[in-house]
Amino acid sequence: MAGKMKAAVCHEFGKPLTIEELDIPTINQNQILVKVDTCGVCHTDLHAVRGDWPAKPTPPFIPGHEGIGHVVEVGSNVDWIAKGDIVGVPWLYSACGHCEHCYGGWETLCEKQEDTGYTVNGCFAEYVVADPNYVARIPAGVDPLHVAPVLCAGLTVYKGLKMTDTKAGDWVAVSGVGGLGQMAIQYGVAMGLNMIGVDIDDAKLAQATELGAALTVNARDTDPAAFIQKQVGGAHGALVTAVSRTAFSQAMGYARRGGTIVLNGLPPGEFPISIFDMVMAGTTVRGSIVGTRLDMIEALSFYAQGKIRSVVKADKLENINQIFDDLQNGRVAGRIVIDFRN
Amino acid sequence: MAGKMKAAVCHEFGKPLTIEELDIPTINQNQILVKVDTCGVCHTDLHAVRGDWPAKPTPPFIPGHEGIGHVVEVGSNVDWIAKGDIVGVPWLYSACGHCEHCYGGWETLCEKQEDTGYTVNGCFAEYVVADPNYVARIPAGVDPLHVAPVLCAGLTVYKGLKMTDTKAGDWVAVSGVGGLGQMAIQYGVAMGLNMIGVDIDDAKLAQATELGAALTVNARDTDPAAFIQKQVGGAHGALVTAVSRTAFSQAMGYARRGGTIVLNGLPPGEFPISIFDMVMAGTTVRGSIVGTRLDMIEALSFYAQGKIRSVVKADKLENINQIFDDLQNGRVAGRIVIDFRN
Amino acid sequence: MAGKMKAAVCHEFGKPLTIEELDIPTINQNQILVKVDTCGVCHTDLHAVRGDWPAKPTPPFIPGHEGIGHVVEVGSNVDWIAKGDIVGVPWLYSACGHCEHCYGGWETLCEKQEDTGYTVNGCFAEYVVADPNYVARIPAGVDPLHVAPVLCAGLTVYKGLKMTDTKAGDWVAVSGVGGLGQMAIQYGVAMGLNMIGVDIDDAKLAQATELGAALTVNARDTDPAAFIQKQVGGAHGALVTAVSRTAFSQAMGYARRGGTIVLNGLPPGEFPISIFDMVMAGTTVRGSIVGTRLDMIEALSFYAQGKIRSVVKADKLENINQIFDDLQNGRVAGRIVIDFRN
Amino acid sequence: MAGKMKAAVCHEFGKPLTIEELDIPTINQNQILVKVDTCGVCHTDLHAVRGDWPAKPTPPFIPGHEGIGHVVEVGSNVDWIAKGDIVGVPWLYSACGHCEHCYGGWETLCEKQEDTGYTVNGCFAEYVVADPNYVARIPAGVDPLHVAPVLCAGLTVYKGLKMTDTKAGDWVAVSGVGGLGQMAIQYGVAMGLNMIGVDIDDAKLAQATELGAALTVNARDTDPAAFIQKQVGGAHGALVTAVSRTAFSQAMGYARRGGTIVLNGLPPGEFPISIFDMVMAGTTVRGSIVGTRLDMIEALSFYAQGKIRSVVKADKLENINQIFDDLQNGRVAGRIVIDFRN
Ligand SMILES: [Zn+2]
Ligand SMILES: [Zn+2]
Ligand SMILES: [Zn+2]
Ligand SMILES: [Zn+2]
Ligand SMILES: [Zn+2]
Ligand SMILES: [Zn+2]
Ligand SMILES: [Zn+2]
Ligand SMILES: [Zn+2]
Repeated sequence: MAGKMKAAVCHEFGKPLTIEELDIPTINQNQILVKVDTCGVCHTDLHAVRGDWPAKPTPPFIPGHEGIGHVVEVGSNVDWIAKGDIVGVPWLYSACGHCEHCYGGWETLCEKQEDTGYTVNGCFAEYVVADPNYVARIPAGVDPLHVAPVLCAGLTVYKGLKMTDTKAGDWVAVSGVGGLGQMAIQYGVAMGLNMIGVDIDDAKLAQATELGAALTVNARDTDPAAFIQKQVGGAHGALVTAVSRTAFSQAMGYARRGGTIVLNGLPPGEFPISIFDMVMAGTTVRGSIVGTRLDMIEALSFYAQGKIRSVVKADKLENINQIFDDLQNGRVAGRIVIDFRN
Repeated sequence: MAGKMKAAVCHEFGKPLTIEELDIPTINQNQILVKVDTCGVCHTDLHAVRGDWPAKPTPPFIPGHEGIGHVVEVGSNVDWIAKGDIVGVPWLYSACGHCEHCYGGWETLCEKQEDTGYTVNGCFAEYVVADPNYVARIPAGVDPLHVAPVLCAGLTVYKGLKMTDTKAGDWVAVSGVGGLGQMAIQYGVAMGLNMIGVDIDDAKLAQATELGAALTVNARDTDPAAFIQKQVGGAHGALVTAVSRTAFSQAMGYARRGGTIVLNGLPPGEFPISIFDMVMAGTTVRGSIVGTRLDMIEALSFYAQGKIRSVVKADKLENINQIFDDLQNGRVAGRIVIDFRN
Repeated sequence: MAGKMKAAVCHEFGKPLTIEELDIPTINQNQILVKVDTCGVCHTDLHAVRGDWPAKPTPPFIPGHEGIGHVVEVGSNVDWIAKGDIVGVPWLYSACGHCEHCYGGWETLCEKQEDTGYTVNGCFAEYVVADPNYVARIPAGVDPLHVAPVLCAGLTVYKGLKMTDTKAGDWVAVSGVGGLGQMAIQYGVAMGLNMIGVDIDDAKLAQATELGAALTVNARDTDPAAFIQKQVGGAHGALVTAVSRTAFSQAMGYARRGGTIVLNGLPPGEFPISIFDMVMAGTTVRGSIVGTRLDMIEALSFYAQGKIRSVVKADKLENINQIFDDLQNGRVAGRIVIDFRN
Repeated sequence: MAGKMKAAVCHEFGKPLTIEELDIPTINQNQILVKVDTCGVCHTDLHAVRGDWPAKPTPPFIPGHEGIGHVVEVGSNVDWIAKGDIVGVPWLYSACGHCEHCYGGWETLCEKQEDTGYTVNGCFAEYVVADPNYVARIPAGVDPLHVAPVLCAGLTVYKGLKMTDTKAGDWVAVSGVGGLGQMAIQYGVAMGLNMIGVDIDDAKLAQATELGAALTVNARDTDPAAFIQKQVGGAHGALVTAVSRTAFSQAMGYARRGGTIVLNGLPPGEFPISIFDMVMAGTTVRGSIVGTRLDMIEALSFYAQGKIRSVVKADKLENINQIFDDLQNGRVAGRIVIDFRN
């Protein structure tokens, strides 16, 4: 598709993105071109443009991996997706399709994956190239603005909850009731779990209660481990959305014997763990990142059924550096979503 | 049963045990009295008499929890065990029977458990009181000397292997091919796993190969992570029998994405863990201690089928302090088993 | 406890029960005596007094296995239950405690189990002897009349739903929305399942919708297999509460590939099954009966949280033969519960 | 690739195949052309050419789905497979890649699958077109003649054993120790299972023992249900490779409570099942067909490790009708493999 598009480009780690006019990218026969309607801004985008992680993107690149859009061009070899389809372009841009992880429905563990807005250009642009085998079909009638955060934030916590190996009726604590935590509470409630919100901000805890948490504890005033052990005999599962040393160590304390703690964040550095306690209590600690395509269908389906509502604020691509600044400084409640429509 | 018995008693942490003549203990209507034939000496006994762990036994006490013996007295309320039965008296002396762990076949996680040779007197004595609901039936025709280490060492690694969530054909690395590791190799082979021995002692690795390990690596010369990743694409599971910082960190490195590392030891102190790597690779780290009664039946059954052979050396109760000394200084190959017969 | 009690006794299969004055039974040191407050009347009681099944009870016997009562006497060897405790006396009177099923948390499969109101006297009496290790603790504040059906009907469908191996968000059809089916819809909703009611009675289907079913189909007018396949691509799981040839064959038709059909009833005779279809579709068919003590805790916990409401009608023991007659002729909506209080 | 090839073609159900000279088929950009070296003859081929099953192939077609060959042509869009690669062309020719089954690693349940030698032309020909995404890589150094039966027979029983939900040390009975059964015994042994052979032919049972079965029973002389229940307390799992009414009903009898019976054959007609027994015993009955690509990798890996040996007899394509005749009349021991090399 000939023409120009607006995009936010990272040219150097740690520097502001520049808003540029670029050629609309061309696709090969196995790809599709998506006109982006909305795209959420995720912490991972911030890590990407700062070059925080060991394996870094290669500038210049366009971040953004919570893109919702409609398909405007389809490669000649693509038969599963058609022009006009509404799709989500998520973090997992593509996987090899042939390794044991891919065969086993665990493409998120594929060692040859490409990641949107990181190893390939992402959705902070009016158009984005996507692999039709890895985009998500967006259920009909869903608002592009509000569904965007499901693509990464929602998917991540939903999968994280699944990885706690808990079942309906079990107690699951969510450590950190920010954007991710609020979604986790809602997914947990929809899954029949008894959710516990753990945070240091009473307003957030009040919101957790409103979203269906059966119990909340302010870790600033109260030792969450003692509290949860006393109230319900410990949590069967824990989802640590904002992994800090404190949050991690608290989760080890409030987990029930035989419980599972799922880590959903990507903090740098090393964390201390008491193996003695872990062995005595039969605790499981597990890392989980985003979710597979099947998880995505499920996460979107819960959303389409009205069981999840996301708190979003629409903004413009031109404000991306301010958004990043707010994000970095904890001034964002819910999710900022870039709205390209209009 | 009136009379006297010989026992090794810990009166003070860190001091030598004393060999004493004590009254044969009396049982209540729900207990049984076992005449001990053999009892293995486990590292946990060493931790017990040194008072190494946070929750300590209360001296004076008699250690020992790999006891094999025959039942000589049966409480009036006991109907499942009869005089003359050959039983094993393991670490798990009893559990509450009514908590969710007990109901769910996870009595090893019971918060009200009693532990043999730790919270109640153990098998470093000619007679021991036992709870008939928690002793193991020893399969007929099995040698009391060689089966003793199955009660704790064998059970522990067998359960540990189960907790790796692997299946036949998967690759499982055993870190530390000492007494526990050798048993782990054998149980793994019997379970259809492709076993990898990791150690720093070539003699032990040679033995691992002889016991059926498909691959071995000397971590002194070769980086086990690089080696295992290259040879087989990483291990699906890892059993760390001798948990040290190095062993733990190596296991994180050689685990395949989505793999599970089971910790089978009880080291004091804290270990560093990179949560970033764990989340990216979807790794699971899990603590596991001894095994349930059902695990015990299975572990003994593999043994009775001739699939496991234990390396034991018989010794006398009177030498217990020397044995502890040897154990502490790594001078014990296989298992020392106290033989009370004769 | 000296004294007399009123009881409904079966002296001959197929004959009316007689209401008699009997001595209050005595307990041994390992038992408890429960004063029955309420007891639901289950189809199994009908099968028992008619001698319908291959293994029959031995008359004279007292049926009844949904008993709620308070403990009035405690054997000297019992420490887990105290006088005054409110307990439920369920179908599983006791199990051996030492077989692989008992060890593994599957005491409902124990080959040496005793069953209340069948192999031992049950709760259609003012007093009943119980095994303290197998009674259920009734959560505080719960109404004895309404909770009674949870002990068997609720437990059975809750366990049945668990055995469908489905997860929150999956589609599960309930075949037969009578007393059991209504409870199944509610448990399913509480577990986050998308429930489908299948029946031939529009009133029952309307009730299913009211209880949270996402979809219903009247199998008299509409082929449920075609309907469910078309609407949602087939059910991941199916619970057949009233197993008939038709219901079973329909479930085979509306199950999704890889789906699981759980049978929750005990019809006599043989049912035809197409193995070709089963293999092609990878279908699982599974029998499930009542539930374990852990399932009971969970089932009661959902109830205590207010997520399940049972439809009950109180009646008097003296009317038991009329109740059986109504039950047999399908004239009972919900559950008749004998109320002994007053 | 221009040129001619020899092929066995079915023009009419129930009629002999004709050996013909056909044009070597052409591939599109997403396909590969495989020069067939060997191809096993499976019972399913017989069903195909007789039109036995409800969904039939459309004549004319070429059967054969245990093809081993080397890649001679590669579509321009194919990057995972290269010219010269040795591949297996199995029953599952292709699947949609986008349904929940495909996403979940269950492509064998895909409703849009194509099947080799059934819905598309198969390997009873010198050349066959294949979908590179669904062929199996054959491990280096493996004999094409002997590995062929692993592609369908081996894969089927391996997956079937996995679907019994058993673990190492469990007892698993194989009903029918013919070609499939012999492979099942071997895979079971490699998986650490205690295998039981059930057949009516002493020679086959002797072979089962030789292949590692721990127990065998001749169902002509001895009731296998009584025998297995008495010897080992019932089988945890059963694999019924030759599903007949008798075999199915016996398996229901010798399964342990809570056991799983996997059906691996595709008999027409209906089989009677006692739901009462199934519910009382908590039995699971499950259909299983071939295996996924991941199962294939595993099945081939066991083979490549030397743990499985197949009994094959090489034959020529020209003899296909005689082979079918022998197969139909039970005159084939092991597997006939068409050898195209020479
Ligand atoms: Zn991959
Ligand atoms: Zn993200
Ligand atoms: Zn307990
Ligand atoms: Zn020990
Ligand atoms: Zn009942
Ligand atoms: Zn039992
Ligand atoms: Zn085949
Ligand atoms: Zn598909």
